[in-house]
Amino acid sequence: MKKTGIQSYMLENPVAIVNTASIVGPKEKAGPLNKYFDKALEDEFFGEESWEKAESRFIKETVSLAINKSGIATKEFDFCFAGDLINQCISSTFGLRDLNIPFFGIFGACSTFVESMILGAMSIDGNFATNVVCASSSHFCSAEKQFRFPLELGNQRPPSSQWTVTGSGCSILSKNGNGPFITSVTPGKIIDMGIKDANNMGAAMAGAAFDTLNIHLQDTNRAASYYDAIFTGDLGYIGKDIINDLSKHNNIDISNIYNDCGVLIFDKEKQDTHSGGSGCGCIASVFSGYIYNQMISKKLNKVLLIATGALTNSLTSQQGESIPGIAHAISIENL
Amino acid sequence: MKKTGIQSYMLENPVAIVNTASIVGPKEKAGPLNKYFDKALEDEFFGEESWEKAESRFIKETVSLAINKSGIATKEFDFCFAGDLINQCISSTFGLRDLNIPFFGIFGACSTFVESMILGAMSIDGNFATNVVCASSSHFCSAEKQFRFPLELGNQRPPSSQWTVTGSGCSILSKNGNGPFITSVTPGKIIDMGIKDANNMGAAMAGAAFDTLNIHLQDTNRAASYYDAIFTGDLGYIGKDIINDLSKHNNIDISNIYNDCGVLIFDKEKQDTHSGGSGCGCIASVFSGYIYNQMISKKLNKVLLIATGALTNSLTSQQGESIPGIAHAISIENL
Repeated sequence: MKKTGIQSYMLENPVAIVNTASIVGPKEKAGPLNKYFDKALEDEFFGEESWEKAESRFIKETVSLAINKSGIATKEFDFCFAGDLINQCISSTFGLRDLNIPFFGIFGACSTFVESMILGAMSIDGNFATNVVCASSSHFCSAEKQFRFPLELGNQRPPSSQWTVTGSGCSILSKNGNGPFITSVTPGKIIDMGIKDANNMGAAMAGAAFDTLNIHLQDTNRAASYYDAIFTGDLGYIGKDIINDLSKHNNIDISNIYNDCGVLIFDKEKQDTHSGGSGCGCIASVFSGYIYNQMISKKLNKVLLIATGALTNSLTSQQGESIPGIAHAISIENL
Repeated sequence: MKKTGIQSYMLENPVAIVNTASIVGPKEKAGPLNKYFDKALEDEFFGEESWEKAESRFIKETVSLAINKSGIATKEFDFCFAGDLINQCISSTFGLRDLNIPFFGIFGACSTFVESMILGAMSIDGNFATNVVCASSSHFCSAEKQFRFPLELGNQRPPSSQWTVTGSGCSILSKNGNGPFITSVTPGKIIDMGIKDANNMGAAMAGAAFDTLNIHLQDTNRAASYYDAIFTGDLGYIGKDIINDLSKHNNIDISNIYNDCGVLIFDKEKQDTHSGGSGCGCIASVFSGYIYNQMISKKLNKVLLIATGALTNSLTSQQGESIPGIAHAISIENL
């Protein structure tokens, strides 16, 4: 990997995304991207006794499915990079405890999926690894209960709030394969815009997303139009509007190519999710389902994927803190 | 980096640990390693309004101190790898939000510090980075409150329980420097021994620690006696005994060279911590303070550092789950 500009890296040996898998919940199944997901849960429990156990089970099944689809034997994998939103990342550690692949737990809130792919790509480009598993998950019920209120309360959600996606995604990265390929990465810095409204995460993360987008384009000396599509995940409607505004203000034209995974995953009219989807599982399932499909079928050939995370918890909000954001970007191309 | 054996990697260009810093709490200051730490808090609040804010502040100050001691300008750092025990790793993300260095949040429970050094070493050996910050922290009060009971309850702790260290450590890794050097790494797999007692983390993690130790020695074709010292962190007294037993049983002689950071940091007779210290800050501060000092002064020249983590939270215990463990190892040598 070769550093370019201040914060980006061009891969000397592009890393192939040889396969992906995604499993989502019933609400996501009812959404517009339904046909792109591998599997959907019939209910939020997935046959388990708790939402947390359900989440562990579906990240486990997603990873198994992706490994099976790749045709690579489990013992041929060097590392697994995975994480999730639940305290101490238990969905991934419990879900993947029998995987028997050296494991790096990571936490980037909803940016975790792209963080895992950056670290995975680095480990392959750097010649440490041949095959790597990258995965993340989230679950509406386990997240809502943990970050906000007991679901049984039936709390009203403000219009700026986002709906945590029940779902998970897994990418299998390899030194060998036909692509699409990860060709460059831009890891993000923590950016705190001073926003304190825990029901407006899109606004809190938008500053980090724009910072990473802007630096990526400057570092790589590319116009936004280099890409067929730029996806953030998961800013939702409000965050997406902010990115559009900031881009216009900075003379970056993304008007015809930009969308957000939190906007794409639910139907605005028919599914009442207010500002759209969120959660580690949002960009993970939308990339592993929809975007990867569009790249394999060559409908998209150059994609910039920017995952955003709100680095907060319920305690920091109670203690009056603002919400720092982070955004990690990777470019994925058919070569 | 070159893979050797099934799970270990020899660094082609050993990575220098050019400096470290450590800040600990008042109880750690009263312990036997006092003189090796850079600074100690006068009380557990460190002038802040909450324990969480205190923890954020001391990881921030530890990182600043290590960067200052290294003489490397902040803008010369490519990445920061950091994590902690608090939900959603807020100690490190809030503490380091102004650092302005691309940030990878990681979670390996108490193994986080060595996880950060493995990823940091990979990024330098792989030519992505020149200088990297690796840090982690824990705080007795913020951890106790979160994982067990409100401190005000004055709950009795069983003899097998460990005392979360209030402290943090930071290593500055660089492509350039005089060492000591990270020369090999063995990332660990998740190992679940089926232990369910959340007050006996040492036993829960010992299986993972021994697995990583054993694989490291096999992979590198080394006898344990290759090392001047082998440190686990943080198994405490019970976990240490288990490692000694397992080693004896497997004809690995570590009797004169093995110790545990959780055993070293507190005085068994004078400080009532039952089974010893624990927490992300334990191995972080003991390495950054004591062990690094012993290597710089050439009292130790070949060290194997094995950080252990219990990948659990309070909810998984309530839901009847066992406690999966993980252990990551690095060898550090004066060359």
